[in-house]
Amino acid sequence: MPDRFPSLCDLLFTHANLATMAAGKYHIKKDAALAVSGKTIAWIGAMANLPEEAASLAKTVIDCEGKWLLPGFVDCHTHMVWGGSRSNEFEMRLKGASYGEIAAQGGGIASTVSATRAASAEALLAIGLKRAHHFLTQGITCFEVKSGYGLDMDSELKMLSVVREMDRTCPQDIHATFLGAHALPPEYKGRQGAYTDLVVEEMLPAVKAQGVASAVDVFCEKIAFSREETRRIFKTATDMGFGLKLHAEQLSDCDGAALAADFKALSCDHLEYLSPTGAKAMAENGVIPVLLPGAFHYLKEIKIPPMELFRSLDMPMALATDLNPGTSPVFNMTLVLNLACILFGMTCEEAIAGATLHGARALGINGTKGSLEPGKDADITLWDMEAPSDLCYLSGLLSPELVVTGGKIEYKN
Amino acid sequence: MPDRFPSLCDLLFTHANLATMAAGKYHIKKDAALAVSGKTIAWIGAMANLPEEAASLAKTVIDCEGKWLLPGFVDCHTHMVWGGSRSNEFEMRLKGASYGEIAAQGGGIASTVSATRAASAEALLAIGLKRAHHFLTQGITCFEVKSGYGLDMDSELKMLSVVREMDRTCPQDIHATFLGAHALPPEYKGRQGAYTDLVVEEMLPAVKAQGVASAVDVFCEKIAFSREETRRIFKTATDMGFGLKLHAEQLSDCDGAALAADFKALSCDHLEYLSPTGAKAMAENGVIPVLLPGAFHYLKEIKIPPMELFRSLDMPMALATDLNPGTSPVFNMTLVLNLACILFGMTCEEAIAGATLHGARALGINGTKGSLEPGKDADITLWDMEAPSDLCYLSGLLSPELVVTGGKIEYKN
Ligand SMILES: [Zn+2]
Ligand SMILES: [Zn+2]
Repeated sequence: MPDRFPSLCDLLFTHANLATMAAGKYHIKKDAALAVSGKTIAWIGAMANLPEEAASLAKTVIDCEGKWLLPGFVDCHTHMVWGGSRSNEFEMRLKGASYGEIAAQGGGIASTVSATRAASAEALLAIGLKRAHHFLTQGITCFEVKSGYGLDMDSELKMLSVVREMDRTCPQDIHATFLGAHALPPEYKGRQGAYTDLVVEEMLPAVKAQGVASAVDVFCEKIAFSREETRRIFKTATDMGFGLKLHAEQLSDCDGAALAADFKALSCDHLEYLSPTGAKAMAENGVIPVLLPGAFHYLKEIKIPPMELFRSLDMPMALATDLNPGTSPVFNMTLVLNLACILFGMTCEEAIAGATLHGARALGINGTKGSLEPGKDADITLWDMEAPSDLCYLSGLLSPELVVTGGKIEYKN
Repeated sequence: MPDRFPSLCDLLFTHANLATMAAGKYHIKKDAALAVSGKTIAWIGAMANLPEEAASLAKTVIDCEGKWLLPGFVDCHTHMVWGGSRSNEFEMRLKGASYGEIAAQGGGIASTVSATRAASAEALLAIGLKRAHHFLTQGITCFEVKSGYGLDMDSELKMLSVVREMDRTCPQDIHATFLGAHALPPEYKGRQGAYTDLVVEEMLPAVKAQGVASAVDVFCEKIAFSREETRRIFKTATDMGFGLKLHAEQLSDCDGAALAADFKALSCDHLEYLSPTGAKAMAENGVIPVLLPGAFHYLKEIKIPPMELFRSLDMPMALATDLNPGTSPVFNMTLVLNLACILFGMTCEEAIAGATLHGARALGINGTKGSLEPGKDADITLWDMEAPSDLCYLSGLLSPELVVTGGKIEYKN
């Protein structure tokens, strides 16, 4: 950490408590100051070490009065862009309707696919921007969005262009992932190989040519895409230079994690049914486990991911909302923290690290995001609370008082 | 419903969708209007039946543009006034500390009791007002607060006077319940009978004399107060004219519900371990079951209350936050709705009725609160959503755009 206070200081936080989350630990600093120059964190230190002239050097000074500064949340797994609503379906299920009955009425992912296909790019953008703004108010300063509700060339590209436009428009840094292999579209029923051909031979090249996604994801599961289909998609995607992610071992052990490890994927996500050999393969190849307790909660899953295995293998665990209309309509990271602690037994420190630094790691951007450290992007949240663990312990109370992305104050509450 | 539009109209909502929750059902009215005169709902009808001159008669007109009006939430079970924080304890438990180890360090309810005793009435009031305001922003327009962290004469009266002051100051209607028999205070260790004597012979008369509570509650459980002690307290309380409530069958079946039924209590709360005979006794005596899924969630309880029994006995089920620092630091009713649906299998309609009309029923105020009906108090919330079930289905997204209590707009978002 440089001792030298920056000559150019755009934003200076004083009298703050910091949980920097550097190296995935709290690294608490009490009564500290943090200076931002341009888009970057320039200086962090104790109030006692703040040069006398600092306040006069800074364009804006914020006295935090003992409140807490944390790195903004990085939500590394969302399906944020979709059309239509599935609350009716949620209600039908509670009244006893089976998945089959709901599907027979055109419900399930098919209803989201047809509503998303039918929606214009402008309509989807309006929905996406509204959701992204809500994320901002909840302290999510960087997030990923997957395609996968289009499932045809034009609709997948439409979704990804919406995400690109969101990234241009929103204060947050937004990462697009191509998930053409999310589900088999209805018109390909019985012809899964042909749809995989379409993904590999036509969609991937188009996504690459348009430059609308940085990563490629596959839902590897008995009800979705097989290990061999996943391998085909990964092979082409990795040759094209995409980062790889995998929906793996959510409902059963399909040995997807080991495959993802072979390809040195960025992350494997869900992992309730991950085997010890799968976990070991991930650890050896630096693949980040992304845990999604929102989907676990909504699906009333019982089997939790192998937490002790992750710990014994020293694997950084990421946490994400998995925001989607079917299994995780979760718009708030503090709720995810709470569910991770209560349902998965994560400690508060593990959970907060999972939603910040390790989330960034699952996107391959932990060099610039996810912790409060000099040189990193100034994505910062200010919280009125007693301790960082309040983020996990209190339900439905906390939202940040101030949100900074890229060095600019983008939200005040 | 009167057809006559009121000559005096202070507030007129137009183009609204209503879920009135009358009789505990949605009773959805699309494209409707609602008029408020003074503190009261004066008229509800279809836009088509709204007199032409209505808008000119009204002092304030709000075009809801198809958004939803619902009755404000009634939270019938909270322990909202407490001093200190227990997030540290939450974190210790996640790191593997046992309840015994935490208690040995002065944790658990003892820590809240000592912090609440140590806090001045002014300090507790400031905390309470902040929490009440957050409740308002979340659409909770009426709620109950229990004492029970004082456990001595002065501290219990201090808590109840704080609640009375909150009721005077806040826009919401706030009901105070005396819960002197919440836990055995440390100075009475081994002398539970003597403490019960104190509650019955000194505290109850003082609470009555000062008029600071309308109901009396007891925690009837192996680790708290016995059935016989509960009976003594109830006998005196009912003779004094207090309404009765009971923390019953939360951790085991102590047959408290049947006792509460004998006394025609307003409600029995928690009820995970309720027996069929207990439920039947409650039903026969009009005792409302109050379900608290927040505590269920935080305690990782597995046994759910007997939902099918409640349904087969036609019992209106109430829902509440149980806001408290130990087992349910839950500050938001929509989260409670979600937990009730997912953990207890309530339908969305049951859950919303539980948090409105049946919550009011558990406080004995369903004649004036809990539904949108002419003649009832104008406690109203406005929501930007597709359907009422969104309140249960979406997590961490919705809060009301507008909150009206007693006919006045008290919060706008
Ligand atoms: Zn997903
Ligand atoms: Zn309680």
